[in-house]
Amino acid sequence: MPGGPAIEVVTLKEGPPGIETQQHVDSVIPHLVQLVNDRQTYDGFVIACYSDPGLHSLREATTKPVLGISECGILTALTLGQKFGVIAILQKSIPRHLRYMGAMGVIDRLAGELAIDLPVIELSNEDKTFGRMVSVGKRLRDTHGANVIVMGCAGMARYRTPLQEAVGVPVVEPTQAAVAMAIGRVCLGWDAR
Amino acid sequence: MPGGPAIEVVTLKEGPPGIETQQHVDSVIPHLVQLVNDRQTYDGFVIACYSDPGLHSLREATTKPVLGISECGILTALTLGQKFGVIAILQKSIPRHLRYMGAMGVIDRLAGELAIDLPVIELSNEDKTFGRMVSVGKRLRDTHGANVIVMGCAGMARYRTPLQEAVGVPVVEPTQAAVAMAIGRVCLGWDAR
Amino acid sequence: MPGGPAIEVVTLKEGPPGIETQQHVDSVIPHLVQLVNDRQTYDGFVIACYSDPGLHSLREATTKPVLGISECGILTALTLGQKFGVIAILQKSIPRHLRYMGAMGVIDRLAGELAIDLPVIELSNEDKTFGRMVSVGKRLRDTHGANVIVMGCAGMARYRTPLQEAVGVPVVEPTQAAVAMAIGRVCLGWDAR
Amino acid sequence: MPGGPAIEVVTLKEGPPGIETQQHVDSVIPHLVQLVNDRQTYDGFVIACYSDPGLHSLREATTKPVLGISECGILTALTLGQKFGVIAILQKSIPRHLRYMGAMGVIDRLAGELAIDLPVIELSNEDKTFGRMVSVGKRLRDTHGANVIVMGCAGMARYRTPLQEAVGVPVVEPTQAAVAMAIGRVCLGWDAR
Amino acid sequence: MPGGPAIEVVTLKEGPPGIETQQHVDSVIPHLVQLVNDRQTYDGFVIACYSDPGLHSLREATTKPVLGISECGILTALTLGQKFGVIAILQKSIPRHLRYMGAMGVIDRLAGELAIDLPVIELSNEDKTFGRMVSVGKRLRDTHGANVIVMGCAGMARYRTPLQEAVGVPVVEPTQAAVAMAIGRVCLGWDAR
Amino acid sequence: MPGGPAIEVVTLKEGPPGIETQQHVDSVIPHLVQLVNDRQTYDGFVIACYSDPGLHSLREATTKPVLGISECGILTALTLGQKFGVIAILQKSIPRHLRYMGAMGVIDRLAGELAIDLPVIELSNEDKTFGRMVSVGKRLRDTHGANVIVMGCAGMARYRTPLQEAVGVPVVEPTQAAVAMAIGRVCLGWDAR
Repeated sequence: MPGGPAIEVVTLKEGPPGIETQQHVDSVIPHLVQLVNDRQTYDGFVIACYSDPGLHSLREATTKPVLGISECGILTALTLGQKFGVIAILQKSIPRHLRYMGAMGVIDRLAGELAIDLPVIELSNEDKTFGRMVSVGKRLRDTHGANVIVMGCAGMARYRTPLQEAVGVPVVEPTQAAVAMAIGRVCLGWDAR
Repeated sequence: MPGGPAIEVVTLKEGPPGIETQQHVDSVIPHLVQLVNDRQTYDGFVIACYSDPGLHSLREATTKPVLGISECGILTALTLGQKFGVIAILQKSIPRHLRYMGAMGVIDRLAGELAIDLPVIELSNEDKTFGRMVSVGKRLRDTHGANVIVMGCAGMARYRTPLQEAVGVPVVEPTQAAVAMAIGRVCLGWDAR
Repeated sequence: MPGGPAIEVVTLKEGPPGIETQQHVDSVIPHLVQLVNDRQTYDGFVIACYSDPGLHSLREATTKPVLGISECGILTALTLGQKFGVIAILQKSIPRHLRYMGAMGVIDRLAGELAIDLPVIELSNEDKTFGRMVSVGKRLRDTHGANVIVMGCAGMARYRTPLQEAVGVPVVEPTQAAVAMAIGRVCLGWDAR
Repeated sequence: MPGGPAIEVVTLKEGPPGIETQQHVDSVIPHLVQLVNDRQTYDGFVIACYSDPGLHSLREATTKPVLGISECGILTALTLGQKFGVIAILQKSIPRHLRYMGAMGVIDRLAGELAIDLPVIELSNEDKTFGRMVSVGKRLRDTHGANVIVMGCAGMARYRTPLQEAVGVPVVEPTQAAVAMAIGRVCLGWDAR
Repeated sequence: MPGGPAIEVVTLKEGPPGIETQQHVDSVIPHLVQLVNDRQTYDGFVIACYSDPGLHSLREATTKPVLGISECGILTALTLGQKFGVIAILQKSIPRHLRYMGAMGVIDRLAGELAIDLPVIELSNEDKTFGRMVSVGKRLRDTHGANVIVMGCAGMARYRTPLQEAVGVPVVEPTQAAVAMAIGRVCLGWDAR
Repeated sequence: MPGGPAIEVVTLKEGPPGIETQQHVDSVIPHLVQLVNDRQTYDGFVIACYSDPGLHSLREATTKPVLGISECGILTALTLGQKFGVIAILQKSIPRHLRYMGAMGVIDRLAGELAIDLPVIELSNEDKTFGRMVSVGKRLRDTHGANVIVMGCAGMARYRTPLQEAVGVPVVEPTQAAVAMAIGRVCLGWDAR
């Protein structure tokens, strides 16, 4: 959008290829803090990993808006359905996500979170990945009562539209949800403190 | 913003001068549905009353995004502090707001809601209104543990910046919060179904 | 019961044939307010629709007891089992009911709500309706852990006894539950304010 | 009410003069079970002590309705205000009541429970008792946000009307609330299983 | 452990052979109180029945630590997984356990509780019992999302290791969990008041 | 205790002098992981900082028990009172602790958390520190309804006994609580997976 904020996409070169464990999450935080410290003139930041690594450390590092895609994906989902389901990549990430949703205080709105159980690396097999996402999405809808679905990984972005068509409930792509909220917050210019 | 969505502000001519009761809320819903039905080419809608009247009826009336300022003000507050406080106009509106926050499933994040207890009509006395807002805001911060405050009325908009300065915690103006989210949603172009 | 309060059953002639959407709910509220305003000498009111349309508007319209069948059906169920299930008519009503139960603050007691997914109009096919109710009731009992079931529509009243026999857990007919509570409240004569 | 159920009031002669501790609660349960076993022809039972001693044991002893005054007082309060406060006799009873409300799953509706901190024996000093109840009731209303109050002891019954007048919010007398619900349930004739 | 506290195991001779109902629970409390009163020189007490009968009465009977195996089994599980499942003996015990977990305020961490549905007496058939435990444990893991399991009966102790191997998630034996916590508390020597 | 596990106390030399911010918390995690990796023959680990830094990363680094003092202090408090209060050092740590308690799912048991608002460095002034702790402890007891208090910093250990005497409710020293639980878990020898 002409006149809108410029968006810079940065890949943390120090991090692991994908975030699969709490150690992965915690290991990137000092690098993220450094990255934000190096960009004090920026107007806002989005952490584009569904574990929202370092969210609260970054909020201490700057008074500019810092948003996480898990947080914003879920908050956006709350406006699209009464019960949201989450599609995770890995089964072992679910407890980590549940702790996060507990800290957010939104557990009563959670229908459930289920994993497609493919390593991040296999996400390149699109047919397999999408097939699993559809089947998990339908299970969230039919067995857990989800009426909106959050894709629990930034790497799933390309599947939003076909997934929504296949499952028949709104699907939230969390990076876009977060960037949209961040643009709004940047434009409002509210300080964090 | 050039190229951004145009914003039309409509005052419901059929409604009461201010929303103070559940009857006020419910009475305007048919008119709001009509208003949305008359604007099917619009890209999205924000209900700019802190009781979010007709939110779910309007979501049935269109597949375009419909957002309420209470909902979006609270969701935005969730990204600015762990416990949010709400400043209401009237004491008698608090149970209505509590039912709404219960339906939203965010009660565990609520520090408290307190009223300045002035009728909507007296909001024109700015000194009195602002003085009460500051004192209620400080009480929410000190006694209830709020670290972010939501202004519980669209009519409080002008006080956001001075209130934030006076109380020392982020203050959310809900209409701007909702419009910012709505612009994001409109730009994303996700259907509601 | 001789000497007990007389019960008048009124059908709102302005309303839709059945309440299936939030718009249906909201559209009847002004008529319900009028109805109560026209009956200020009455001792109490029960809203005999499982969406409890206008409950809080009517409580503003009179100081006499106003009870909803959803509210009273659920409160009664809380005395009959630790986890209650709800049988809805339509899938699309479940989010609306969940918002209501969230506002009531009773979600932790909810086992689940499942729909028989027949339009109100088909409820006249008794065999089909009852068969679906039994199968949904057993699913609530076996898969969701319900030990009491609330029938989520006033139109299901005739099935209470056979459903309880078929499913083997207590079944609450919400209209009777609400009328029973209303009679009690009328006899107590407590003002609402 | 002519034709209504007869009400027999029984004082458990084996129990302590008042229920002040968990030991008091637990000690009377075998006697209550015996009492119900001796009255298998009765149509229903109300436990008229605010700790609802033996509620679930009695529900095993009979298929007839068994209601507790704490349970029914609270459920009735849920229809009279969004946040209920409880006036307890003794500070040390509050944790016991909180466990009970936690088991009921209604904590989100609780504004608070405060004690007048008089032993059951001193309840005979009416002026002192009532004065404390008013002051505690006002504190529940003003500091805790209660919009309905439950009197947390059967012995407080005589104060319902003056307390409601003094505090200005509905006051629930739990024994009457429970008896009213019990009469309704007896008339409905629903089995517990 | 040399120098560690001596452990005396006492079987209540007055109690039923197994605790299967709320009446069973309540009936043993006076005897448990007597038992604790007779042992005022002891340094702490563990109630080795998964219904934690008399927990709060015993805490009134002594200022020494009193711990229940249900409570401690669950608290220990909270350190081993984000969602805990419980394997009960009997279906009819689940509502009782749910009331207890509600009073503990830990429902949001509960994945679910399922019964093997064998009477205490049949626990002697080890193959049958273990087979059912494995199948229920796997259902808790796969359908309910449990990542730790609590064995809901002291009589299941011998199955901890093989159950953990068969199901592949940590399994808590509640008596050992409680005794371990009790030893710690006894060594700390903190008074209860 | 002869024969009991040896306890080694290690101070992380890389960390800040005290943990006061989320950045402090996150910055020490890689070092903690290294520390645990270097001690694979140890039988268990306790993180003796009330923010439980790296708890879940460390649980990935070893199958031996890893316990945090915040977690264990709170779990122990749950056995000592129905509502626990927490005394924090700094006001700004409270949101971080609240997120943690939300993730633990124990918010319904929290009476409140209040800060003495002294930097870690000033804890050496014992009179000032203790005086503030007593006043905050009494406020938690009287205004927030706490019946047990958790000291929210490892550095407060010396005040446990006098604080308990001054406030009159049980006080939990979280490091001892965690070490006691850890010894129990080490002795049980349950693997984490």
